[in-house]
Amino acid sequence: MNDTPLATDISLDQLIEWIHDQQDTPLKEAMATLSAGDIASFLESVPPEPRRILWEHVPVEIEGEVLIFLHEEVRQTIMEEMAGDDLIAATDQMEIEDLVDVIQELPSEMTEAIVDSLDQDRRARLDQVLSFQEGTAGRLMTMDLLSVRPDVSLAVVLRWLRRHSKLPVHTDALIVTDQEQRYLGELSMEALVTSSPDTMVACVMDEEASPVQVDTPEHDVAALFEKRELVSVAVVDAEQRLIGRITIDDVIDVIREEADQQYLKSAGLDQEEDLFAPVVPSAQRRGLWLGINLITVFMAAWVIGQFEAALSQIVALAVLMPIVASMGGITGSQTLTLTIRGLALEQISVGNVRWLLNKELAVGALNGVVWSLVVALVAYLWFGDIGLAGVIAIAMILNMLVAALSGVLIPFGLKVVGIDPALSGAVILTTVTDIMGFLCFLGLASAFLL
Amino acid sequence: MNDTPLATDISLDQLIEWIHDQQDTPLKEAMATLSAGDIASFLESVPPEPRRILWEHVPVEIEGEVLIFLHEEVRQTIMEEMAGDDLIAATDQMEIEDLVDVIQELPSEMTEAIVDSLDQDRRARLDQVLSFQEGTAGRLMTMDLLSVRPDVSLAVVLRWLRRHSKLPVHTDALIVTDQEQRYLGELSMEALVTSSPDTMVACVMDEEASPVQVDTPEHDVAALFEKRELVSVAVVDAEQRLIGRITIDDVIDVIREEADQQYLKSAGLDQEEDLFAPVVPSAQRRGLWLGINLITVFMAAWVIGQFEAALSQIVALAVLMPIVASMGGITGSQTLTLTIRGLALEQISVGNVRWLLNKELAVGALNGVVWSLVVALVAYLWFGDIGLAGVIAIAMILNMLVAALSGVLIPFGLKVVGIDPALSGAVILTTVTDIMGFLCFLGLASAFLL
Repeated sequence: MNDTPLATDISLDQLIEWIHDQQDTPLKEAMATLSAGDIASFLESVPPEPRRILWEHVPVEIEGEVLIFLHEEVRQTIMEEMAGDDLIAATDQMEIEDLVDVIQELPSEMTEAIVDSLDQDRRARLDQVLSFQEGTAGRLMTMDLLSVRPDVSLAVVLRWLRRHSKLPVHTDALIVTDQEQRYLGELSMEALVTSSPDTMVACVMDEEASPVQVDTPEHDVAALFEKRELVSVAVVDAEQRLIGRITIDDVIDVIREEADQQYLKSAGLDQEEDLFAPVVPSAQRRGLWLGINLITVFMAAWVIGQFEAALSQIVALAVLMPIVASMGGITGSQTLTLTIRGLALEQISVGNVRWLLNKELAVGALNGVVWSLVVALVAYLWFGDIGLAGVIAIAMILNMLVAALSGVLIPFGLKVVGIDPALSGAVILTTVTDIMGFLCFLGLASAFLL
Repeated sequence: MNDTPLATDISLDQLIEWIHDQQDTPLKEAMATLSAGDIASFLESVPPEPRRILWEHVPVEIEGEVLIFLHEEVRQTIMEEMAGDDLIAATDQMEIEDLVDVIQELPSEMTEAIVDSLDQDRRARLDQVLSFQEGTAGRLMTMDLLSVRPDVSLAVVLRWLRRHSKLPVHTDALIVTDQEQRYLGELSMEALVTSSPDTMVACVMDEEASPVQVDTPEHDVAALFEKRELVSVAVVDAEQRLIGRITIDDVIDVIREEADQQYLKSAGLDQEEDLFAPVVPSAQRRGLWLGINLITVFMAAWVIGQFEAALSQIVALAVLMPIVASMGGITGSQTLTLTIRGLALEQISVGNVRWLLNKELAVGALNGVVWSLVVALVAYLWFGDIGLAGVIAIAMILNMLVAALSGVLIPFGLKVVGIDPALSGAVILTTVTDIMGFLCFLGLASAFLL
């Protein structure tokens, strides 16, 4: 708990102590030994003031790399405080693919200053990347790749490679293209080093390895990497011309972000939310979610208000009513969570949603009967009223069935109409289970107990 | 929505239709063209009966591979129905590392039959893998690797590689060891193909690339891969002797599973839960969570019960009390979600938890004041009672402060004592915000309004 267990020996607490005691020398040394990823994680682990001190100690030559690792919001606040020259020096270290993400968050005068500082070549590439839609293969890919022709021998390829001292990162294959840069296949590093040097590329290249289209959504690219266990994949345009390459490190970011979003959205939070964001913007963002919740809970309160007569006569109803709503809420949220996950994994479709519905209704009914009997027994022992016990049992069973039904149909319906179920599913579900819980319980009580 | 957007053209709905119409030929053809990962995903997308039909059409030669891709629960049900010979044939295709995971889920007589079928070599490796602790690098690694000596030339290495026709998957580097198999460094494929053939391995090997210890927790291995952007890493024992290699595909599984677990646990679900699990076991597993919730909600009901006098005199209290509890619950769950994520990313520690607490309390206070004024206004317009409006405003502010405090301290405290906050954090938090909400509101009302 007190140590970050990575290859580095520096713990977060140690670093915080140094910042607090203003010990510049160990801070400087630490920043010089840590990787950019580690530094970024530490920067995100402290509030704005110590973050500023820490940032001052980051070696200038890796500032660009550290910025890339940061979440959007933290990066933005740091960059907005950087002097023009420092900023241009930092962005100068970035690959164009990363730069695109970065400049879109900045105020327009900063963006302009950065774009103006680019040489012609980088500027042309920036324009090209910007022409691809966000969230597609075109934005994930790098243009840093090596391609070879099919009609040369491996010996020629090896001689040519030896003239490079570095290959593009994660080069597990060279891409084979014809004269018009059209994709033909891949020459794996494995084939390159295990085949005889006088073999022709065409004889050992993998023609099964298929490229992805530049407009493929990044979610589908990630799914492809996972199912085919890829390290990199070629990207082609509509004419099958090779235009880039996507590597596993970018895909891991996509996987991580998608999972992160699903989790954070369930509480109405933004994935880019800074752990130590300033109070006022944090309060504003979360306030919206609280406001939406307030509307739904007022609706539930209004339903309760319709049964004032019953509540004023039988005070036990007010005591027991949260039980009916809560058990429905839990039942529904279990089904909802399972359904949202199934939808994200593309395992739920029109053809099998009815099976899922039947199963969840059966599970809800079974648990409804079991736990409503427990609740009825406790209610009877507590208030000594057999009618009340019967009413709460029936209300619970009904609400748990509604909950199971809603847990499947709400996210499925939201997805069909194009709304993200991870964000709004839980709020809608709780509204339904609260209102139905109060309505069933107080309604049945009014009908049979008054 | 109706199509799985992978490289395959077969949609889930199409497959379900074929199963339903018992069209064996297209089913057989589909199973022959799909990858093992796709087949596994389809198997998980249908209930047990069609699943059985689908499984019958899976080509025998990839049955083992498909089983590896399945979630534990689905795999278990399929394997338990397989005949002894089929099972042994399927497990025969598996690597030992995968086989270890598989046999541990099976009934002991099936495990014995499989172990008995292994040849001496595979059996010895099975015993070795079983000797490593679950959830560590030792269980993630494969023993399928290539190592070279430092005192040979690259030409010799290349000649030696050409005698292999295949390299281990994801071989981005050969591992350099001394005669005692002690780890010295890595010879990247990049260095191998870009350096002159007469260079010695020792001159171009990367000595900075550090191996992981066999007992490193898999979470830390995954963090290392992400921060260093690795494709594979060497695994060594306490004497620095090379014993295996971990590749990126296994690390992605770890990342995916961890994220998945965090999400599912928040609803008290098991990560291995089958979407189409039989009703009774599903109901049992979820029933436990409902039972725990029932205890907490009875505690809240007991608190309400202490204020029967107030409730019987002012029925508006029963109408408004869910608002106080719910707004506290939302505030708390936002803080809780952020804290659980921060803990998982190792960004929260003793040194900075106070900062986080102050910030969350400030956010809670700000939203508490704003929304309590809104609620007070609505309550006043609804019931025309200024005292009631004042009481609900103060109760809401108090409960939202308690919620912010609990949202940080509950997960932090759980982690300190070694309990997983993702699983139990939400239940404890809701208990606190419900009880405090009812207590503040009804307590203040009893004191000032009666």
